[in-house]
Amino acid sequence: MSKRTGLFVTFEGGEGAGKSTQIRRLAASLEELGNAVVLTREPGGSAGAEAVRHVILSGAAERFGVRTEAMLFAAARNDHVEEIIRPALLAGKIVLCDRFMDSSRVYQGITGNLDTAFVNALEQIAINGLRPDLTLILDLPAEEGLKRARTRSLEAGSTEAPDRFEKEEIDVHEKRRQAFLDIASQDAERCRVIDASKDADAVANAVLEAVLEKLNARKQDAASHE
Amino acid sequence: MSKRTGLFVTFEGGEGAGKSTQIRRLAASLEELGNAVVLTREPGGSAGAEAVRHVILSGAAERFGVRTEAMLFAAARNDHVEEIIRPALLAGKIVLCDRFMDSSRVYQGITGNLDTAFVNALEQIAINGLRPDLTLILDLPAEEGLKRARTRSLEAGSTEAPDRFEKEEIDVHEKRRQAFLDIASQDAERCRVIDASKDADAVANAVLEAVLEKLNARKQDAASHE
Repeated sequence: MSKRTGLFVTFEGGEGAGKSTQIRRLAASLEELGNAVVLTREPGGSAGAEAVRHVILSGAAERFGVRTEAMLFAAARNDHVEEIIRPALLAGKIVLCDRFMDSSRVYQGITGNLDTAFVNALEQIAINGLRPDLTLILDLPAEEGLKRARTRSLEAGSTEAPDRFEKEEIDVHEKRRQAFLDIASQDAERCRVIDASKDADAVANAVLEAVLEKLNARKQDAASHE
Repeated sequence: MSKRTGLFVTFEGGEGAGKSTQIRRLAASLEELGNAVVLTREPGGSAGAEAVRHVILSGAAERFGVRTEAMLFAAARNDHVEEIIRPALLAGKIVLCDRFMDSSRVYQGITGNLDTAFVNALEQIAINGLRPDLTLILDLPAEEGLKRARTRSLEAGSTEAPDRFEKEEIDVHEKRRQAFLDIASQDAERCRVIDASKDADAVANAVLEAVLEKLNARKQDAASHE
């Protein structure tokens, strides 16, 4: 593995937490400060990954099992890592990625009923040693996140009332939320939980602060090794 | 993993060793003896696996790296295992598969420059515990196999002379041959090397004998556990 100088930041969290808005705001702030930034997302993010995603969604194979589907997503992630993320980091850029390995752990492992050993083995194969330097978990109570997501879909023309949530749906979102929080506490060095229930400006400040802190720690670390 | 009663036989070996001819002859002999037989092959063999194969070959993604490609093949194998092979075995059938995991070990691992740990991790994920009961390795000196493959392609209308082999090409085939023989000696319980330089009838007899022996051992084993 070559030495790399960039910073790899991933964004995780449930629906309606404002990830895409916050990533765009962060990218703009970092660029204003003179950084080269690459914005990307999963699933997809590279030509190969998009091709694999297309197969999964095309219905070309009538039904993939959950295991095969997880393997296809892992292949797509590996392509994304090797074609887009690693080259950008080697070029010293800051890579901001909307969802990454923790989403697989949570959506496939915790609430997808795939066993943990299998999900971990796929993760190692897919990321090939490229762990995020910083993972920002945008945290929101499930009911609030669902309400925001529904409001957004209402504004986009959906006719479904935003206040009608099934208890079951809230339960599964809450289970995912807890899984993200568990990951954060198990890997506190890498993860930072951001309270996404605050207003967008406050969240943007917290996000930028966390990234600048990591960038500075990196610089000091590099300086002390010179 | 459910208990299964069928027999899973894979065929391995280099080009020109006569695998497809021998598989068809074996299937006919086993059916004459009253067995239910399923013939299948890799890569492909199931709807999902064919869809994945199509992506790899379509050029939809301009260039997959060798790692991503190996992961896609593993996803295809997993689909093939779960959709075709395991159900047939659970139904008590004899499954004959043209190439399986040993081809990946040899073509991707030994001569494809992927590291062994990665290839092994993918294998475990792909086969999900379903190892062949018997693997028949049709063995032939590389030069002889290449000669047969070229003659066949000449008969099919190719204009290339069958006796012009690059030394490099023979070397890589010989390396693969040795890799298959190494697998056989490391896993003697599962593998049987068949001398494919003999005439087709002699090879067919050796193949049938190996399969019937394994079937009988299975029956005796089952009887002693009743």
